[in-house]
Amino acid sequence: MPKYSAPTRDFRFVINEMLDIESYGNLPGFENASEDLVNSILEEGGKFTSEVIAPLNQIGDQQGCIRHEDGSVTTPPGFKEAFDQYRAAGWGTLTQPEELGGQGLPQVIGFALKEMMSSANHSFGMYPGLTNGAIEALKAKGTPEQKAMYLPNMVSGQWTGTMNLTEPHAGTDLGMIRTKAEPQADGSYRITGTKIFISAGEHDMAENIIHLVLAKTPGAPDSSKGISLFVVPKFLVNDDGSLGARNGVSCGSIEHKMGIHGNATCVLNYDEATGWMVGEENKGLAAMFIMMNEARLGTGMQGLSQAEAAYQNAVAYALDRRQGRALTGPVDPEAKADPIFVHPDIRRMLMDAKAFTEGSRALCLWSALQSDLSEKAQTEEERQAADDMLGLLTPVIKGFTTDMGYETATNMQQVFGGHGYIEEWGMSQFVRDARIAQIYEGANGVQAMDLCGRKLGHKGGATIQAFFAMIDEEIAAASADPALADIASRLEKALGEQKAATMWFMQNAMTNPNNLGAGAYNYLHIMGRVTLGFMWLKMAKVAQAKLAGSPSDKAFYEAKLVTAKYYAERFLPDCGALRRKLEAGAESMMALDAEAFQTAA
Amino acid sequence: MPKYSAPTRDFRFVINEMLDIESYGNLPGFENASEDLVNSILEEGGKFTSEVIAPLNQIGDQQGCIRHEDGSVTTPPGFKEAFDQYRAAGWGTLTQPEELGGQGLPQVIGFALKEMMSSANHSFGMYPGLTNGAIEALKAKGTPEQKAMYLPNMVSGQWTGTMNLTEPHAGTDLGMIRTKAEPQADGSYRITGTKIFISAGEHDMAENIIHLVLAKTPGAPDSSKGISLFVVPKFLVNDDGSLGARNGVSCGSIEHKMGIHGNATCVLNYDEATGWMVGEENKGLAAMFIMMNEARLGTGMQGLSQAEAAYQNAVAYALDRRQGRALTGPVDPEAKADPIFVHPDIRRMLMDAKAFTEGSRALCLWSALQSDLSEKAQTEEERQAADDMLGLLTPVIKGFTTDMGYETATNMQQVFGGHGYIEEWGMSQFVRDARIAQIYEGANGVQAMDLCGRKLGHKGGATIQAFFAMIDEEIAAASADPALADIASRLEKALGEQKAATMWFMQNAMTNPNNLGAGAYNYLHIMGRVTLGFMWLKMAKVAQAKLAGSPSDKAFYEAKLVTAKYYAERFLPDCGALRRKLEAGAESMMALDAEAFQTAA
Repeated sequence: MPKYSAPTRDFRFVINEMLDIESYGNLPGFENASEDLVNSILEEGGKFTSEVIAPLNQIGDQQGCIRHEDGSVTTPPGFKEAFDQYRAAGWGTLTQPEELGGQGLPQVIGFALKEMMSSANHSFGMYPGLTNGAIEALKAKGTPEQKAMYLPNMVSGQWTGTMNLTEPHAGTDLGMIRTKAEPQADGSYRITGTKIFISAGEHDMAENIIHLVLAKTPGAPDSSKGISLFVVPKFLVNDDGSLGARNGVSCGSIEHKMGIHGNATCVLNYDEATGWMVGEENKGLAAMFIMMNEARLGTGMQGLSQAEAAYQNAVAYALDRRQGRALTGPVDPEAKADPIFVHPDIRRMLMDAKAFTEGSRALCLWSALQSDLSEKAQTEEERQAADDMLGLLTPVIKGFTTDMGYETATNMQQVFGGHGYIEEWGMSQFVRDARIAQIYEGANGVQAMDLCGRKLGHKGGATIQAFFAMIDEEIAAASADPALADIASRLEKALGEQKAATMWFMQNAMTNPNNLGAGAYNYLHIMGRVTLGFMWLKMAKVAQAKLAGSPSDKAFYEAKLVTAKYYAERFLPDCGALRRKLEAGAESMMALDAEAFQTAA
Repeated sequence: MPKYSAPTRDFRFVINEMLDIESYGNLPGFENASEDLVNSILEEGGKFTSEVIAPLNQIGDQQGCIRHEDGSVTTPPGFKEAFDQYRAAGWGTLTQPEELGGQGLPQVIGFALKEMMSSANHSFGMYPGLTNGAIEALKAKGTPEQKAMYLPNMVSGQWTGTMNLTEPHAGTDLGMIRTKAEPQADGSYRITGTKIFISAGEHDMAENIIHLVLAKTPGAPDSSKGISLFVVPKFLVNDDGSLGARNGVSCGSIEHKMGIHGNATCVLNYDEATGWMVGEENKGLAAMFIMMNEARLGTGMQGLSQAEAAYQNAVAYALDRRQGRALTGPVDPEAKADPIFVHPDIRRMLMDAKAFTEGSRALCLWSALQSDLSEKAQTEEERQAADDMLGLLTPVIKGFTTDMGYETATNMQQVFGGHGYIEEWGMSQFVRDARIAQIYEGANGVQAMDLCGRKLGHKGGATIQAFFAMIDEEIAAASADPALADIASRLEKALGEQKAATMWFMQNAMTNPNNLGAGAYNYLHIMGRVTLGFMWLKMAKVAQAKLAGSPSDKAFYEAKLVTAKYYAERFLPDCGALRRKLEAGAESMMALDAEAFQTAA
């Protein structure tokens, strides 16, 4: 059975050393986030996720969720009990405000726990993950009464939450949804319609499930401007907070999926269910985007999380499995063969994984810090800058990290050879689970268009220019240091490719928007590589500074420097190729008609 | 349910127009291969595979193979009956020699049928596929008695065959196998040991199964130089050809795999089974490589085949599914949304798939022609040249085509959005089935080392130089034609990257073989892209010539030209990036010790 052990040393490096969160001690919520507290949360979180959650991962895959004839759903063996432990330990309360029963800690700490949860068990992590998204939407748009009624129990984990967007004919294009909301005399609405792909839509892990549902009021515009958001609890909640009648929402079936079998992906049938509007009428999409942005960062992290789990198991296998001899001569002449760890092509895959997981961990946590700063930084200017940067990077984190997460999980499976294809080893599950993150919360092609069609033009291009300036500055500072100069120079070249690609869009997308669409995916991957390169340069700088002080764990920092160099050598060269593809434009891509794709017979 | 329709028009283009197989009419076996015959075989093969084999693909995935307590195995519903039809129609006999009951047709025709079989149903296609490999090994190394005893029934499909290499502790490194072969007084051997991952190892589709098994005779060298090959029939065969006693080989279990559920992947236990040596003692690996080379080309084709099947279904979905509007304005203003086919990022994925599948189809069939020529060309020089080229390209076809096949299947699943993740749509199966082709028959990292460590140095580098010269010649001929010059020039640049990478190996691998190992995978992918670019240039040339004659299906040839351009613009730029990665060498890749990969906690 595959194992997971939380990379606490690396978390500590990023949070305490690279991000230096103690330096933000003057901001609300950060005052208690001492290095000691961070370390003890990482330690406890690591134990909980590796010992309680990870052992349920494979059984969740094998047994899945079961829908009974009455529409109730049983989660895999152990899930309910593990969630009881999660709730009892208060893991869901870490970053929530104290007035809701939370601990008010920075997002950056909460995000570390989320990565651990998802590495240990992607499917399990989704139950609290979706609850968080629903909490954020209610916090932002709910009435005081709605907040009081739902939030404390959602924060504590007594209840969970869901997001209900997709319908059979409407996924990316939510303007086409058909679910109806009929206003009632008492101010509530009757919700009727069918929602599909509802993660954690029905289960036995909590007393109540708070569904946030997109629907259309009578006469609403027939587009995405006619969508409203509703809160629809599985059980109605009485004024005293006790649970009342069962609402008219039920699980019609559970999907048979490629992976994440431990999460109940439901068809939810709303049959005159009672709901209440959240936020303004016809402004539901904006409210839903609050959940979506939170969810997209979390989805990016899922790509990393499966890569990390797969990587750990591949390392163990590579050190244990013996086949053949090192090219430079036997490493272990006494044995019949050397561990496959000695083979360069195995090492290539492991180093790719190490460079990606550590780089994207830094990126995810750095982004979580931007999320903190967007709310808590001292000046409006700082808050706005952090919010802009987070908005710019959200599609990159979602799209790039999940693509690379799937690729990494696939490579880690490859390390196992034939055994990787056998389900018992667990590597197939990492690949199958990682796959969904490229698809849900906006397929990665949609992320690319969000990045290039909306975010690049944000504030007349000022946000992407701020991104360039931020990295230029880091490069300039590093160029003088001989230990960092080569990495900085390679990053400068890659950033130059991104700048050139940006310029190409400016010159060619106005005349033909398909030129933007044709290159958007390439651009997303250029920017992903550059952004991780930026993180690696930051990490190398910190490692280099630490090494100057002759630290006891010298090898850790030396490995950071080597991996930064590896990343620069092996990930950044793609930026030039991606730019050249992008600059080919839309012509040959869009030239052929439907018939040219159907000439099979 | 996903559908498959054989791309017969494209097969006809490659076989009749690009390869012009009628021009080989003076060679044995080709004399009957008229365009009419080719077309009628493609037509009938297309019907059989799409109507009989393809409908069993999903049920094979869902129901898999069942092992009963007595060790017998039941294949999925319909497989046995379909194989009866396959046998009755004589599909297995196409390319076999007439003296064995075959039709003596060129490999290039047989290979087209194999692609169709595998696209229709990867798992099903493996039963006859492995039989072919076993036939080739027996033809090459069997005694006249062995050939007479086994081959006619294997050719007819009355019996099937298997390859038994892997043991639990020995996969890539076959020198470590432990299965024993004890010589008996009557010239037979007693075979004892455990083999794993034996595809089609036990089933109910044929009367007998002829296992080819690697084992060690007493006192054999403790390395790959001590392996012998044995034929071990499931049922012993009496002198009159009737079936005798059940042999001591049985299926201990069926593996639970990520995909190819319709193929019975068995643990086979040999318990003093009776076998006979095939070929010379201790030369079993060489004999097995006859099967392996055949199998590696077939495995490359499997990558193409799953990409093709996934592509066809993605095209149908993209034309049917409506979400959003074209960036250039509504294409179908009457409807609520346009088909997703209008979105550039969807088209990017479809064009990538079209460029890859058509390009790799040309490559597979061109290689099959080299296989024919290696046996049948008029001069020894021509036969040798074809054999050398085939040997050089075998790891490229296996490694590159299966990597791209998996990537393509994944992208085609992405076209479906959330529905792609739902098993009922069938896209997950294409991905899961395609995955195995990167792993078995020598994992792709092993292919890369075969290419760089053995094939590049073949005949002192003369073979790779011949490859360069062949492409240089095609480029030179195309450069004068304005319609082809841009494609030729992009290919020239990519080929330049490959030449430079080759030179870098020559200068840096002698001093440190890890530099070869570290860049081998990059090299394989450079060469794959160049080779497909060569095929596209050939196809573009033929299409351009046809267009000059104002053909009735002008659109088909125009699409070839557009796709050739797209391929050159979108696949070839990677060669430069891959070369730069390769030139980074082994230093940072091999610098870290085991501990640096285990610092999780």
